[in-house]
Amino acid sequence: MAQNGLNNEETMLFDPEILLNIDYNAVNALMSSAGTDFKLRPLNRTDFSKGYLKLLQELTTVGEISQKQFEAQFDKMKLTSDGYFIIVIEHVPTQTIVGSSSLVIEHKFIRNCAKRARLEDVVVSSNQRGKQLGKILVETVKALSVYNGCYKISLDCKDTMVPYYESLGYKKEPGNANTLVIRHNL
Amino acid sequence: MAQNGLNNEETMLFDPEILLNIDYNAVNALMSSAGTDFKLRPLNRTDFSKGYLKLLQELTTVGEISQKQFEAQFDKMKLTSDGYFIIVIEHVPTQTIVGSSSLVIEHKFIRNCAKRARLEDVVVSSNQRGKQLGKILVETVKALSVYNGCYKISLDCKDTMVPYYESLGYKKEPGNANTLVIRHNL
Repeated sequence: MAQNGLNNEETMLFDPEILLNIDYNAVNALMSSAGTDFKLRPLNRTDFSKGYLKLLQELTTVGEISQKQFEAQFDKMKLTSDGYFIIVIEHVPTQTIVGSSSLVIEHKFIRNCAKRARLEDVVVSSNQRGKQLGKILVETVKALSVYNGCYKISLDCKDTMVPYYESLGYKKEPGNANTLVIRHNL
Repeated sequence: MAQNGLNNEETMLFDPEILLNIDYNAVNALMSSAGTDFKLRPLNRTDFSKGYLKLLQELTTVGEISQKQFEAQFDKMKLTSDGYFIIVIEHVPTQTIVGSSSLVIEHKFIRNCAKRARLEDVVVSSNQRGKQLGKILVETVKALSVYNGCYKISLDCKDTMVPYYESLGYKKEPGNANTLVIRHNL
């Protein structure tokens, strides 16, 4: 480890101990069945070199992000108190990130200064499908939202994904299930 | 002003100059028609004493929040880089907060380390309805999201509110307009 304690290899977005403390039984069982080649952990500052951004390209446009830009964004998220909990699944033999999802926490005044959780940016590499890695990622984010004391967790999704998320416990609330958007021309 | 610069009266959640720099024509016109008794500005650390939390009670459960808790939550939001832009409308003669809405910004890696905006917690005091204060709040948050370089702004709402937000430019995207939720028992 570097003398200043800022060993890049060890810099995780959040304390990995948290993943041992969440209500994790369902996730552990799934991880076991996925096999020993996979490791679930917080996003790491070195994951630029392990294909994290390449994985995100399977989700949507990523653009050309330099290592420096990646690290700056990582640092901004890490400095945000209780804001960003991005988890990844690393395929250990190839040192490649093959899955990721994000818990984003919004702090509010309502409901006794409550926290609201959002599930964002769930992606599994196309060559690792069928191993329930997506379910592991979604269930872990849910457990992390409970661990962090969030009063609810929500997501926006396409019509085609509704049955999948319903199977994992998410519900459309009657009369209260609309997402509306304005897209800006940047 | 206090010697240390931490004059509570002057501590705003974000630089009020921003409100002068956003694309603001529509909002200015509306503010003029609302009358000179109203002032639009960032949430202030002293707004606990101006009824900010009482106003939020018109939106949902707030609970018993002490001034100290309010200030701690305010400070956490203020320390979050480009995270929280809560605006309020003060009724100047009574020094009462009669309207509020929040721009919450999520930082992402996708889309060249993009920012995504959310409109949250729009509320106008029931005794100040009919003056288009809600429209002022919603339009200002939209302008703030452009000013901050967000690629989109979204909101979740009840069915009954869809026509209102559609009238202000928000759209349900075909096949992509679902909000799903899990509520946790805290």
